[in-house]
Amino acid sequence: MDSSALYHRPDSEYAYLYETGHFHIRLRTKAGEIKSVKLISGDNYAYNREEWIEEEKNMKLLYRTNVHDYWMIDTYAPHSRLAYAFHVTDHSGIEILYTDRGVYPFEDRYMNNINSFFRMPYFHSIDQIKTPEWVKETVWYQIFPERFANGDRSNDPEHTLEWGSKQNPERDDFYGGDLQGVIDHLDYLMDLGINGIYFCPIFKAPSNHKYDTVDYFEIDPHFGDKQLFKTLVEEAHQRGIRVMLDAVFNHMGMTSYQWKDVLDKQEASQYKDWFHIKEFPVRSLEGLSADELENVGPLNYDTFAFTGHMPKLNTANPDVQQYLLQIASYWVREFDIDAWRLDVANEVDHHFWRLMNAEMSKLKDDFYMLGEIWHSSQSWLQGGEFNAVMNYAFTEQIEGFFINKFSSASGMVSGLNKQLMLYRQQTNEVMFNTLDSHDTPRLLTKANGNKYVAKAELTFMFTQMGAPCIFYGTEVGLEGYDDPDCRKCMIWDEEKQDHDMMTFTRELIHFRKKHQKLLSYGELLWDDIHEEERVIGFRRKDSEQTLYCYFNQGDENLKLHYHREIEPVFSHLTSVSGYAAKLKPNGFLLFTLGDEEEEDEILAAF
Amino acid sequence: MDSSALYHRPDSEYAYLYETGHFHIRLRTKAGEIKSVKLISGDNYAYNREEWIEEEKNMKLLYRTNVHDYWMIDTYAPHSRLAYAFHVTDHSGIEILYTDRGVYPFEDRYMNNINSFFRMPYFHSIDQIKTPEWVKETVWYQIFPERFANGDRSNDPEHTLEWGSKQNPERDDFYGGDLQGVIDHLDYLMDLGINGIYFCPIFKAPSNHKYDTVDYFEIDPHFGDKQLFKTLVEEAHQRGIRVMLDAVFNHMGMTSYQWKDVLDKQEASQYKDWFHIKEFPVRSLEGLSADELENVGPLNYDTFAFTGHMPKLNTANPDVQQYLLQIASYWVREFDIDAWRLDVANEVDHHFWRLMNAEMSKLKDDFYMLGEIWHSSQSWLQGGEFNAVMNYAFTEQIEGFFINKFSSASGMVSGLNKQLMLYRQQTNEVMFNTLDSHDTPRLLTKANGNKYVAKAELTFMFTQMGAPCIFYGTEVGLEGYDDPDCRKCMIWDEEKQDHDMMTFTRELIHFRKKHQKLLSYGELLWDDIHEEERVIGFRRKDSEQTLYCYFNQGDENLKLHYHREIEPVFSHLTSVSGYAAKLKPNGFLLFTLGDEEEEDEILAAF
Repeated sequence: MDSSALYHRPDSEYAYLYETGHFHIRLRTKAGEIKSVKLISGDNYAYNREEWIEEEKNMKLLYRTNVHDYWMIDTYAPHSRLAYAFHVTDHSGIEILYTDRGVYPFEDRYMNNINSFFRMPYFHSIDQIKTPEWVKETVWYQIFPERFANGDRSNDPEHTLEWGSKQNPERDDFYGGDLQGVIDHLDYLMDLGINGIYFCPIFKAPSNHKYDTVDYFEIDPHFGDKQLFKTLVEEAHQRGIRVMLDAVFNHMGMTSYQWKDVLDKQEASQYKDWFHIKEFPVRSLEGLSADELENVGPLNYDTFAFTGHMPKLNTANPDVQQYLLQIASYWVREFDIDAWRLDVANEVDHHFWRLMNAEMSKLKDDFYMLGEIWHSSQSWLQGGEFNAVMNYAFTEQIEGFFINKFSSASGMVSGLNKQLMLYRQQTNEVMFNTLDSHDTPRLLTKANGNKYVAKAELTFMFTQMGAPCIFYGTEVGLEGYDDPDCRKCMIWDEEKQDHDMMTFTRELIHFRKKHQKLLSYGELLWDDIHEEERVIGFRRKDSEQTLYCYFNQGDENLKLHYHREIEPVFSHLTSVSGYAAKLKPNGFLLFTLGDEEEEDEILAAF
Repeated sequence: MDSSALYHRPDSEYAYLYETGHFHIRLRTKAGEIKSVKLISGDNYAYNREEWIEEEKNMKLLYRTNVHDYWMIDTYAPHSRLAYAFHVTDHSGIEILYTDRGVYPFEDRYMNNINSFFRMPYFHSIDQIKTPEWVKETVWYQIFPERFANGDRSNDPEHTLEWGSKQNPERDDFYGGDLQGVIDHLDYLMDLGINGIYFCPIFKAPSNHKYDTVDYFEIDPHFGDKQLFKTLVEEAHQRGIRVMLDAVFNHMGMTSYQWKDVLDKQEASQYKDWFHIKEFPVRSLEGLSADELENVGPLNYDTFAFTGHMPKLNTANPDVQQYLLQIASYWVREFDIDAWRLDVANEVDHHFWRLMNAEMSKLKDDFYMLGEIWHSSQSWLQGGEFNAVMNYAFTEQIEGFFINKFSSASGMVSGLNKQLMLYRQQTNEVMFNTLDSHDTPRLLTKANGNKYVAKAELTFMFTQMGAPCIFYGTEVGLEGYDDPDCRKCMIWDEEKQDHDMMTFTRELIHFRKKHQKLLSYGELLWDDIHEEERVIGFRRKDSEQTLYCYFNQGDENLKLHYHREIEPVFSHLTSVSGYAAKLKPNGFLLFTLGDEEEEDEILAAF
């Protein structure tokens, strides 16, 4: 047996406390090579083998990627401590023992050497990664405040354009969207069914996107004021809607008073250590046009990307830490927000996020910290920092199959499984899944305007683990290319809204919320993948029910037959009649089968 | 190419800031399968390929185990951020690109997709793992205080036995060793050359080993008092010797006032949440014999192992945390100790160790926190907890070759390399390397009394990265089986001391200290391993010099010939004459070659 593909790491996403009494252990092996994996485990202080060893327990082949198989077991230990090794058997019958010290032949003398075993020395509840339950029940709605609704014309910026007047908004346009506009439409959102709003930044900043914060303690005056925001949160909470704000702690805007003080007093500024300044004097970029700003050349201070008007904050400076922690606490304590989304989270130090997490946990024990990280994020999700990240790395796999046709069905499943296996299960349950945002083209545009594809893709995302998010306007058929085009004005003119899309979105959200437990916690079984036909069939399953899910992304109709009655739960481009169903191209069918008492039927006759 | 063995994980021991300007990246591949690995890297914000991509840089094959090859590069990034991927070529010429999203063919279109690359988003000095420089220069000496020296007969416990009177000490013996005994022999230790003392526990406790602490704020009266300990630290520091104390924060002794209060008041005790008590009443085990204690049966509270007289502390309780942190701080602040060795460190929660690390760092920025952990310890060595662990997992590899003959030469090298690749380089540099301790049989006994083997093994350990430790008595030829036999009284009768061993030990320590920089930081090149002959030849190498190291563990003499003059640095059972050397079985030779200007000669004519 070639053991070079084996991977396990104690006290990581490969071995962790899921919840009291449930300890998860995973093992990675080469795809298709291993026939069975058994866990040999016991208490590490009961040295005598007969005394300590547990019966070997079968591990389950949980997920497969195109390269690896992932095996899993949910186990426990009476004294909260475990020594364990893996008994791995390949298809040719060769058996090995995989331990902390390496691989040995499967022989008694190695099984007796408990010192070589992997260890989980003691399961501490305080080290257990806990994720907020409410997030698992949330369907998010992302609002870009300048473009959602203008509820108060009196606070419009100068040169505000008429709402939706341009087919394609430009980088520096203003349309007057504000918090009153959101308040005015809370009932609309409640009716849509969402129960969490993710707000792009609302603090004082010169741009329309507000990612160049000038004052974190002030609501941007063009959006409203603190009293209005307080009202907004209260009204949202009354409707069962949670509120997440967006904070940029990586950098500041160049018109912040701290940066201006540095420009003014240079090395004598009390804020000179608030940034990463390599030498003085620091040059002012005020008055430069957007184009000029893009081409300022080398700078003697660190910035976000290469944008000189966004100087990077030195979050290792205790004064900066205190300042940012005060901000983070202020909006929770005074305005009762439920979550922070942290911009460019990967470029701020871990040390700071730990401080912030500790502060937030003191204020609300189920507070949600979401990081903007686009790549693999294990080191931010080990507990004590973020609860989740914006799960682009996951959703791009879905896009690769449904839209780009870049991936095959099994290619998408492989990509999704790889992502799932990067994190603990409780983390996957609260991931922020979104198919588009203010930083990407819009879903419908990516789908080349094909609503059927967009609907199938959205629905697929809603069947996966993690909390799904709708980007404002998706429900009315808003399109848009990359920033700034994806930040179009919301369509409120009912004649221009896509009512079919609206109905669909509402039903999709209600479907998710109705089956939230199953979709958050249930097993995911990829057991009916048809490569050539571009058909994905899988089950979500818990002790109470099984939801069958089929997506037809091929060019032909898909026919399903069962021995029991098909009971549709949510579907599109699909007809069902008794034991049979027909799915047109882009059609999908989520259903249960009559007579739950019977064994699950795994495969459809195809 | 079979890519299933590839492994990389950003922001871990596979990708970390070693020091400013030096970013280390490692890649794991299947042993022997890959011909070359090149790093493709650039700034993640310079999207245009021509602009951001760096020239491909060769990675070096650093270490090999029997299963994996480990490749490494020391790189940097002008803007402190890096996107990177691996260009891997196997021996058949197949090329792939290994990225954060998986493996792709080595084609331009994948190389352009920077979103798929691994990321180190920003190198933060505050997140960099820093390890104390002084530890790298330290040769430790471990003292079990009850058995090192009796300097004050007036504080001897009742029934103290005559020093060294029993051939084999028993579990409950007392011999009167104390702190005055250590003070009396500081000049002896300085002469030996050691510059760090690791003390087994000295706090008030009933047993001779003191791991059953009763009062962490008191020196055990049979060892001395606080004034005496203060003197000891001062005298040690004056001699350039650092002091490490041993603390047991996992559990307490059953005669501690907290546990007695629980036994007394049961559920009404203010200390009831200091422990892990499952139900009341809790049973007192006082008065039971050691044998009876071993067989008390199931208990309704958690203990260390199954020992009912050592109730486990609830370190998630803020009161317990405060109490333990006060202790940890007290001995640093008031007595100026340099390091804590934490007993059973793996069974206490990470959360607590983070708190303690933060406190210690405040008191001394180069404080050393050493954990007793026998297995792979990555999750304790990620920064903010321990600096190092007692490196049994490393040294057992050495033992496996030199003593047990369980491992071949390449088997040992494989095992050592595997351990080195579990941790960042700066962590390996401060590992606590020891071949025996109060918890194992003594080195000489494990070597079946063969001093030649013991000397070779010790010397080998001294040539490796990490700070070596001598267990008291090794230098006088002390033997002993497992606890309690390994805790014999130190031999002070000069007629009974092994003077040859003493001279050897002194010279070995001086060799280490003289070449500390090379041995701490130098490259390690395993380039002359002879399986059948049981010969290990390797180099330690830095920009200034190369140390050649040969160990002959075979049954035949080993002859070496070079084209340059052999200049012995440290050797045993070896004769050198000009360009040639002869090593008897168990012999070793550490040497440089004349004329440093020339290229290294890698292989000896054999």
